[in-house]
Amino acid sequence: MAVQQQAAGESPATTGTPGDLVAELVTAVGPEQVLTEPASVERYSRDQATWAGHGVPAAVVRPGTAEQVRDVVRACLRHGAPVVTRGAGSGLAGGANAVTGCVLVSTERMTSVLEVDPLERLAVVQPGLVNADLRAAVAGHGLWYPPDPASAEWSTVGGNVATDAGGLCCVKYGVTGDYVLGLQVVTGTGELVRLGRRTAKGVAGMDLTSLFVGSEGTLGVITEVTLRLRPARPAEHTVVGYFDSAVAAGEAVAAVAAAGVVPSAMELMDHACLVALDAWKAMGLSTEADTLLLARTDSVGERGDREAELVLDAFRAAGATWADRSGDEAEAEALFEARRLGYQAVERLGPVLTEDVCVPLAALPQMLARVQAAAQEHDLTIATLAHAGDGNLHPLIVVPAGDEAARVRGQAAFDRVMADALELGGTVTGEHGVGLLKRDGLAAELSPPVLAMQRAVKQALDPHGIMNPGKVWDG
Amino acid sequence: MAVQQQAAGESPATTGTPGDLVAELVTAVGPEQVLTEPASVERYSRDQATWAGHGVPAAVVRPGTAEQVRDVVRACLRHGAPVVTRGAGSGLAGGANAVTGCVLVSTERMTSVLEVDPLERLAVVQPGLVNADLRAAVAGHGLWYPPDPASAEWSTVGGNVATDAGGLCCVKYGVTGDYVLGLQVVTGTGELVRLGRRTAKGVAGMDLTSLFVGSEGTLGVITEVTLRLRPARPAEHTVVGYFDSAVAAGEAVAAVAAAGVVPSAMELMDHACLVALDAWKAMGLSTEADTLLLARTDSVGERGDREAELVLDAFRAAGATWADRSGDEAEAEALFEARRLGYQAVERLGPVLTEDVCVPLAALPQMLARVQAAAQEHDLTIATLAHAGDGNLHPLIVVPAGDEAARVRGQAAFDRVMADALELGGTVTGEHGVGLLKRDGLAAELSPPVLAMQRAVKQALDPHGIMNPGKVWDG
Repeated sequence: MAVQQQAAGESPATTGTPGDLVAELVTAVGPEQVLTEPASVERYSRDQATWAGHGVPAAVVRPGTAEQVRDVVRACLRHGAPVVTRGAGSGLAGGANAVTGCVLVSTERMTSVLEVDPLERLAVVQPGLVNADLRAAVAGHGLWYPPDPASAEWSTVGGNVATDAGGLCCVKYGVTGDYVLGLQVVTGTGELVRLGRRTAKGVAGMDLTSLFVGSEGTLGVITEVTLRLRPARPAEHTVVGYFDSAVAAGEAVAAVAAAGVVPSAMELMDHACLVALDAWKAMGLSTEADTLLLARTDSVGERGDREAELVLDAFRAAGATWADRSGDEAEAEALFEARRLGYQAVERLGPVLTEDVCVPLAALPQMLARVQAAAQEHDLTIATLAHAGDGNLHPLIVVPAGDEAARVRGQAAFDRVMADALELGGTVTGEHGVGLLKRDGLAAELSPPVLAMQRAVKQALDPHGIMNPGKVWDG
Repeated sequence: MAVQQQAAGESPATTGTPGDLVAELVTAVGPEQVLTEPASVERYSRDQATWAGHGVPAAVVRPGTAEQVRDVVRACLRHGAPVVTRGAGSGLAGGANAVTGCVLVSTERMTSVLEVDPLERLAVVQPGLVNADLRAAVAGHGLWYPPDPASAEWSTVGGNVATDAGGLCCVKYGVTGDYVLGLQVVTGTGELVRLGRRTAKGVAGMDLTSLFVGSEGTLGVITEVTLRLRPARPAEHTVVGYFDSAVAAGEAVAAVAAAGVVPSAMELMDHACLVALDAWKAMGLSTEADTLLLARTDSVGERGDREAELVLDAFRAAGATWADRSGDEAEAEALFEARRLGYQAVERLGPVLTEDVCVPLAALPQMLARVQAAAQEHDLTIATLAHAGDGNLHPLIVVPAGDEAARVRGQAAFDRVMADALELGGTVTGEHGVGLLKRDGLAAELSPPVLAMQRAVKQALDPHGIMNPGKVWDG
């Protein structure tokens, strides 16, 4: 499928005039919080998935309360206008891209920490709160919110929930959804409701909370999130390994798993990625290693020491050209910071088509080899970052701006990598979501009856089809 | 609501004759695996919730494969016959109770461990596998499946998934749903499909896997489960505390949480429960303590020692009449075994109406006080077992057999305890499910728009209404 066809420009027919709609939005949120001028609206019209098309919103609204969100959705229902929700716009699949004629709901003003309860170990927050600000707020209570997407410094909790975002520590501590106890949402029928609970356990009815987690704005708008927290954790041990190929590093990852160690992070950067980083930050990594593997363990006391030694042994046994434990926490943190900047480093080379495949650990070396084969075959730079301990790879397909032939080859490589992941028993998206970019991948991954189930649930909860239409499942 | 009205005796109109249906079932699973004689069928017609009504199945089938389950469901669709699925029949809410005219699908022959993968740390099993057999099978690979309902020795994985069962170690390790990576199910439209994944992460489409977890057979029949496992864990430290009231023990639980310790188990037995245990097993516990609190920590090395000391300090500070660490693992295990037998011990006193409320930890002392007040007010024995570290209480309301007045008072106490839990910010069911017994409680807990969402999703996935009709949501 050509990239151009992925634009989400169509909107359902409206039943009122745009003027009526805007007036009702102004009534809902106040005149300062409704933007309609093209230049203002443009800034809100897309996320970081530069390859995905986008439409032009009828208006951008910036509600401050859940009730205002409800009133906005009710206005949209009256006018048949699509609702697209946006956190920080850091998404990588086009899930927050505007649909023409939509009302784009920005959560940027809903940034409050409403409650931190150290006894129940939970926090209640508004959706526009930045992940790092949440982490800082709970740290003051001796608590820790684990999910840490590389975008943690700017992405929002609401966006993290909408995509079920992962991050570096998922390999040991799970993803966003593992920490969501309850949600307040505005539904597709304009009801403001609470889902889930505040207690440690609860099975009262179907788990609609988990259904909303990762639904990418297609079922409703998240207006509040109740999050489970963990006690603050001990300091980590870091192990660094250089490898002469991505495949060898992949084998080291499998060796760590085989040794029974569950690291608290296990990140991979391949050669193209290290070259891009050096071009930006001059860290000299690409001259020392073909592929860099960073592992951490946060187990306490002697066990942490023992696990770090087991990781080091696994790295060496898998053929590391150099490997050692880092005695210098500042140096170790600098390497992880470099990993977090990997995406931006590669983006400096040109527009990037971002993969997010996840495969079983045993298939990781083979998947890395297939990515390199796809790069060669399609004559493209593909720089791979990976949450390697999860088997979650982000091959970043770089295509020079304006080179239409390369663009077509890039799309072919993108489709090929997703097909390879499925063939190896994996999924087309580990943590970014389907959005616009992976709709074909989703259709390849899920069987027709499961796609029909997904559409039936969507239709049941969003009967008027106003919630982020055209995303995830083809419109 | 009177108990008698809770019977699930009605069935939808059938479009064929029972004879036709039975013949098709025989074609699907073979003549030996279709039971229709009243005495045989009776044994399958109810779970352990003795208070809940039940109907008479048209037939019991015992399929051996997922394809046979699919063929059974398709036969039921053709005849408009309800499908009720049963694992071990250890449910405590009537969720597996027969609906008159239903086909009762027993998973008793689907007990295989299909795969254990130590590298990916997952297992693939059939739904009729007993929880303890799964735990034993993976232990041989150095792996651990944490969810441990007190019924672990006889309840099945499929039933555990259908109710999202909890257990003793949930306080630290979560519930069944936290370990379900993927499911194979037969849907309400007779399709055999795979939901979820085998990879560590995955966000391809809505999370239908979590939707099926805890749906109590109302969306489909589970035919295979892919489970996440953990590495084997170190030995535990046990701390035992005696308290002169249930409320004081509840305060000790909150004190442990306030100390920042996450125990690997924290179980409470109140005086009525200890008396029942002594009447059966003569352990002499009820003469030593009003209320018994058992805590464990499995943190490694010095940290485990330190946590055990913190728990002991918390017990003493909260007014334990006696508290100590157990140096004798056999003795500690005997106490936990007594805890697991608590339900049966109380059942020896008479028919039991089983509560399963879960409240925030801060509300635990007050909830325990309210349960005692309900017992006094309604002149009943209520023996309370609790996964106290989760705030999950099982007040067991004992009513002498044949005493109709006591039965009415029992129902009133049951409703009162659920209302109290909701008032304290809790839920009517922490881990047993709604089944038949807590349908009124569910309607009180969920707002009308959320109930409407639940029904809309049910209708979307089970459009013919054949899957366990009359359960969870009123028929």
